[in-house]
Amino acid sequence: MKRTEIKDLKPGKKVRVHGWVRSIRDQKSIMFLILGDRESLVQVIIKKEEYPEVAHALEGIQINSTVVLDGRVVAAPNVKLGGIEIIPTKVTVTSRAAVSPIDEKSGLDLQLDYRWLDLRCPVKTGYFKVQTEILRAMREWFVKNKYIEIMTPKITGHSTEGGAEVFEVKYFDKKAYLTQSPQLFKQMGIAAGFEKVFEVGASYRAEKSFTSRHATEFFGVDVEIGFVDSEHDVMDAQEAMLAAAFKQIGKSCADLFKKLDIQFNGNLKKFPRITLLQAYDLLLKERGYEVPKASKGDLDPESERLLCEISAEKWGSDFIFITDFPVSARPFYIMKGENAKFTRGYDLLYRGVEITSGGQREHRADVLRESIRAKGMNPEDLNFYVQFFEYGCPPHGGYCIGLARIVSKILGLPSVKDVIYLFRGPDRLSP
Amino acid sequence: MKRTEIKDLKPGKKVRVHGWVRSIRDQKSIMFLILGDRESLVQVIIKKEEYPEVAHALEGIQINSTVVLDGRVVAAPNVKLGGIEIIPTKVTVTSRAAVSPIDEKSGLDLQLDYRWLDLRCPVKTGYFKVQTEILRAMREWFVKNKYIEIMTPKITGHSTEGGAEVFEVKYFDKKAYLTQSPQLFKQMGIAAGFEKVFEVGASYRAEKSFTSRHATEFFGVDVEIGFVDSEHDVMDAQEAMLAAAFKQIGKSCADLFKKLDIQFNGNLKKFPRITLLQAYDLLLKERGYEVPKASKGDLDPESERLLCEISAEKWGSDFIFITDFPVSARPFYIMKGENAKFTRGYDLLYRGVEITSGGQREHRADVLRESIRAKGMNPEDLNFYVQFFEYGCPPHGGYCIGLARIVSKILGLPSVKDVIYLFRGPDRLSP
Repeated sequence: MKRTEIKDLKPGKKVRVHGWVRSIRDQKSIMFLILGDRESLVQVIIKKEEYPEVAHALEGIQINSTVVLDGRVVAAPNVKLGGIEIIPTKVTVTSRAAVSPIDEKSGLDLQLDYRWLDLRCPVKTGYFKVQTEILRAMREWFVKNKYIEIMTPKITGHSTEGGAEVFEVKYFDKKAYLTQSPQLFKQMGIAAGFEKVFEVGASYRAEKSFTSRHATEFFGVDVEIGFVDSEHDVMDAQEAMLAAAFKQIGKSCADLFKKLDIQFNGNLKKFPRITLLQAYDLLLKERGYEVPKASKGDLDPESERLLCEISAEKWGSDFIFITDFPVSARPFYIMKGENAKFTRGYDLLYRGVEITSGGQREHRADVLRESIRAKGMNPEDLNFYVQFFEYGCPPHGGYCIGLARIVSKILGLPSVKDVIYLFRGPDRLSP
Repeated sequence: MKRTEIKDLKPGKKVRVHGWVRSIRDQKSIMFLILGDRESLVQVIIKKEEYPEVAHALEGIQINSTVVLDGRVVAAPNVKLGGIEIIPTKVTVTSRAAVSPIDEKSGLDLQLDYRWLDLRCPVKTGYFKVQTEILRAMREWFVKNKYIEIMTPKITGHSTEGGAEVFEVKYFDKKAYLTQSPQLFKQMGIAAGFEKVFEVGASYRAEKSFTSRHATEFFGVDVEIGFVDSEHDVMDAQEAMLAAAFKQIGKSCADLFKKLDIQFNGNLKKFPRITLLQAYDLLLKERGYEVPKASKGDLDPESERLLCEISAEKWGSDFIFITDFPVSARPFYIMKGENAKFTRGYDLLYRGVEITSGGQREHRADVLRESIRAKGMNPEDLNFYVQFFEYGCPPHGGYCIGLARIVSKILGLPSVKDVIYLFRGPDRLSP
């Protein structure tokens, strides 16, 4: 007999039902179980004298064990769970559960040690259902708009992308490295004439960061588009994608958001765009906040938080683009602006955090070599990359959305750890 | 002015057009360019005396350079490319191309060295358009059928999955490893109550294989489903997914397949299912082929090829499931069959190659420990994994489809290298 999902049970039917034992009430002559699958619950009633083999099979059963049962569905108007119950004629305990070592009061570290038990909570499972829909909505827009999906390599023979630290891999008798982003390789797609590419994939940073925003392995939605006239074309493309995706999510996740008690408005207003200098002025004028010296030329976490507050108040937008970052705050591959002190790089902030770095790239090999040199690096070390631009390459730009960042903010959660399936940090490599 | 794509050009309009210079005909007083973007071509005409600045900007231009031009679209009934041409009033050369170091006659290694130039060929770009649609069709089915998307970690503190070689990563002051498959971690999703999960992600094998089917980094479509009664439920699920996806691809790729000259039938017949022993009999009876001793208990490449031929002839199916592999040929995590010499593991063959390994997993911690021991491994080393099954876990199974394998076979290509964006092999880590 094929399995019937609990939500599809109808009185009068003979069925096979698989499920988790969610609760047990064991009386002298009768036993009640609440059985659950991912979506629903049902009551199971066992009259011990009538079905001694069923009662025997269930002896000593603990919560979180799993069973498969064949039986009859009967109407039971007094039963809250759908007005039905199951009378099983045959039960097999498919797994016997030990007592869970964690509960709601467990600390974060213990929860991460037993992540699979932590995720069983329907609210946390719900986060991943939402993420599934978010990714689907984004990808759907990309494919409709003729973006080509690519999968860039995560291992490379080249150690440097400038800046952040890399993990080293023993690659047979050679050294290899984990890529810090698909940046250099997605740009290759533009040189290849793919014109518009996207990727959802992993990146690696060997940084000892212990914040609510960082992981050593993180997944991003990466995009690169060719034939742009400036970084504003890239922002237009990102804004159009997010507007379409949010509209879609508003529909596809409506029930989920209700269950998770999440306020979500799928109708995005136009995102404000201000320069970094305008942002500094705004922070000072509206909040009396001055960006600390160490962060000058960039934004610190507090200014990101405040700018999002201001954007919501002033323009009714949870999003805000910040443009015109100085050359010092951006990597070598970002194109310089008309004023050569500034770049064509931008950040997109959402509900208090930076969720995207983007911008127009430098696509002229000679200028690119100069930018690499100006950052104190040797263009020879990046020749595998610079050569992408030697045989013709259109002006292009792109962006990356930190997946855990946008998902956690949509869900109103404080840390990216909540929405990462198995978090990897400097102190965490297991399970 | 915003860019207009070439396919959208209409006579009488003033436009900005970005493109690649596909050909140049430079005469004394007039110059013709064929300009192309990803999808289309258009002729550009420059009367040198009338527009001396345009002519000057284009001096010395080489094929594969990129330009942006502002101009007027005029009707030109004699011009084959859509009966229009562009008269530019302003041209900027956005990149000047050096002469390509490869052509159609270049060897595979040189083509891979200059992969981005190799991919420019519209046929090869087309392969990635097809792959984009294949992935979309599969994911669409998963999401519609309530699978949850997961992203399992690719770095782990645990070295062993049994069998294949792993890459070692320097992880701060510890050792880490690249995962050989999402296998162990996708099963965690079942223990977490996710019930049905899928992932499209990378896996790593440190094997010195130099075949047309192997890469050290490869991308797979991984699936795991809970509450199965046997491996046949898993096969049913995979068959339903592939039938839906092929139907969808037949529609969404119809034009692409025509351009690429590819025969594709989206209406799949029911896949035959035969046991390994039946397969051996069939090979002997139909082709006089005996599987070599070294491959006994499994299939060698030649038998995979022949079985697909036989399946097409006998059952009209490009696919064929092979079941009941012996314990010796399967990893520790596959459940044993009713006859304990055999497993609940299966292979799915398509057009001559194995594209999937799948099966029901062992979800009982104690039996699993026994299987690990029987393979000569220490259950302690796999405790991070075995513990997933200590706190209740339903019977489950799953499969992985090698993406490059199925895509290359759909496209009728001899090697997975053709459809991998940047191939990684024992001797190849660059670009």
